[in-house]
Amino acid sequence: MDKKLIGIDLGGTTAKIALLNKEGDITEKWTIKTNIEDNGSNIVQDIGNSLNQKLAELQVKSDEFYGIGMGTPGAVNFEKGTVKGAYNLNWVEEQNVSEDLGRITGLKVHLDNDANVAALGERWKGAGEGGANVVFVTLGTGVGGGIFAEGKILHGVRGAAGEIGHVTVVPENGYDCTCGKKGCLETIASATGIVRVAKDLAKDFSGKSKLRDAIINDEEVTAKLVFDFEKENDELAKLVVDKISFYLALALSHIGNMLNPEKIIIGGGVSAAGDALLKPVIAYFETMVFPAVRESTKISIATKGNDAGVIGAAWLALPNEEA
Amino acid sequence: MDKKLIGIDLGGTTAKIALLNKEGDITEKWTIKTNIEDNGSNIVQDIGNSLNQKLAELQVKSDEFYGIGMGTPGAVNFEKGTVKGAYNLNWVEEQNVSEDLGRITGLKVHLDNDANVAALGERWKGAGEGGANVVFVTLGTGVGGGIFAEGKILHGVRGAAGEIGHVTVVPENGYDCTCGKKGCLETIASATGIVRVAKDLAKDFSGKSKLRDAIINDEEVTAKLVFDFEKENDELAKLVVDKISFYLALALSHIGNMLNPEKIIIGGGVSAAGDALLKPVIAYFETMVFPAVRESTKISIATKGNDAGVIGAAWLALPNEEA
Repeated sequence: MDKKLIGIDLGGTTAKIALLNKEGDITEKWTIKTNIEDNGSNIVQDIGNSLNQKLAELQVKSDEFYGIGMGTPGAVNFEKGTVKGAYNLNWVEEQNVSEDLGRITGLKVHLDNDANVAALGERWKGAGEGGANVVFVTLGTGVGGGIFAEGKILHGVRGAAGEIGHVTVVPENGYDCTCGKKGCLETIASATGIVRVAKDLAKDFSGKSKLRDAIINDEEVTAKLVFDFEKENDELAKLVVDKISFYLALALSHIGNMLNPEKIIIGGGVSAAGDALLKPVIAYFETMVFPAVRESTKISIATKGNDAGVIGAAWLALPNEEA
Repeated sequence: MDKKLIGIDLGGTTAKIALLNKEGDITEKWTIKTNIEDNGSNIVQDIGNSLNQKLAELQVKSDEFYGIGMGTPGAVNFEKGTVKGAYNLNWVEEQNVSEDLGRITGLKVHLDNDANVAALGERWKGAGEGGANVVFVTLGTGVGGGIFAEGKILHGVRGAAGEIGHVTVVPENGYDCTCGKKGCLETIASATGIVRVAKDLAKDFSGKSKLRDAIINDEEVTAKLVFDFEKENDELAKLVVDKISFYLALALSHIGNMLNPEKIIIGGGVSAAGDALLKPVIAYFETMVFPAVRESTKISIATKGNDAGVIGAAWLALPNEEA
């Protein structure tokens, strides 16, 4: 009989847990609160207990599963199955996550970081359509990413592969980034970056604009508001979306020219803008890539939303011959 | 007994052929002329004949080899083992290279493109030191590259992965590139690009400079001459090297931030400049990469020179469990 999969997407507020069949369809899904007290020392136990309880309720045994896949914040050591520096979980020191969760559940645990499992989920069951070369870029509070190439997620030598948010798109006089350098994509194309660009362009904008009025009146300005005004043909909002699209396209063109994936998928909160973002990005992208890439690398919007994490995590537990 | 390997590096002027042990050490090496007459229809036969003759001379049988690996210009179809669009070989239509060479020699033939096999050679036995994540950038008449990630060479969906020469480094008002777009790394950091930058900067340069004098007097200016004058502290040459280093570092920073390889290796004729190029490139690179990448991704100069191609080609023939 085909075995099943367990996917866990651990975040600073909640852990999403799901049971899936080996085709990646979710059959059960629930959420527990992440308890970050006591240096996050209860997190793994809480997840394990919740999982054991659910399997008992459903009367399924642990040997009906290939294993558990889990996405986590922080720096993952893939060989040891440990995590450290996950500050939103209060995991500063190294945590033996795979070993601990494995002991509690009796299952083999496969770890990767949260951006990579979201990439894997979109690749497997979302806009990536199961392709062997798919890159996922998530535009949220920050900008993250995951690269799936020749059938494998890329980690690099220090686990820093896929740091698309820190690709330098403005090499001179760029904004300061939280990473310590300047001109990163994240400073422009994240939700906070978009607001920063709007406020900056508003300074020199003298035409009529509701966006400019909102900024001057110190109203709350969000990335969503920028796109809402852009749909109303607000002149300043159009300039902002054009600038963001240009720099996002530039970073995506580097992905295209270097990796030639079949799909580059844009996810995260900002991707809710849909075509308002996608169309100008594609238009710039096509002027910035090599002809063979222009014909073969396509950009689209993520489709799996919040489920991408548990789906991609579950994929990690799939035996090689099935993946 | 351990079997041996055959590596072939096919170019428009010559084909380099080598026999290697399975550790990648060359035991025999020779060169034959590439006959591009009759639509290059003799090329594969000539290589096969030369190989058969050499093995007969050495009294070694074909079953003492794992197989043949070969790097070729043009667009390689890895599944079919065919090549097309190799214009310097007069191979316009699809050629059944693997099948034909396999029939002539009785050995299994593995193909990849010339930039990728050079990358594999430097990765295996050169500056890459056998690492699992190594990127090779070659600065010659053009700029090419090969990406080795998580133990595999990346091809992308249309074989265009590794086109580092066409990464857009000047997104606005860049030079026209032969690929049809603008602002490609190749327009600046290739041997011809360096001369272009020198001539361009000379126009606005009013100080004393031997490089400027050579340009004004219509003497032959080469990339090597630019670096030679730079060593003599020529002011214009220093500006040129600084500009080239900045844009090369920018493209390499994208490799670093996206792929976090342990090594980025610079090869090709321009890399003969050595530290004069490497030092300023590293200085800019370090300001353009994410902290974890700054600590873990190192840049160095290729060490295998013209042998990189045959060595990397031979690696293709190595069975998976040995590679």
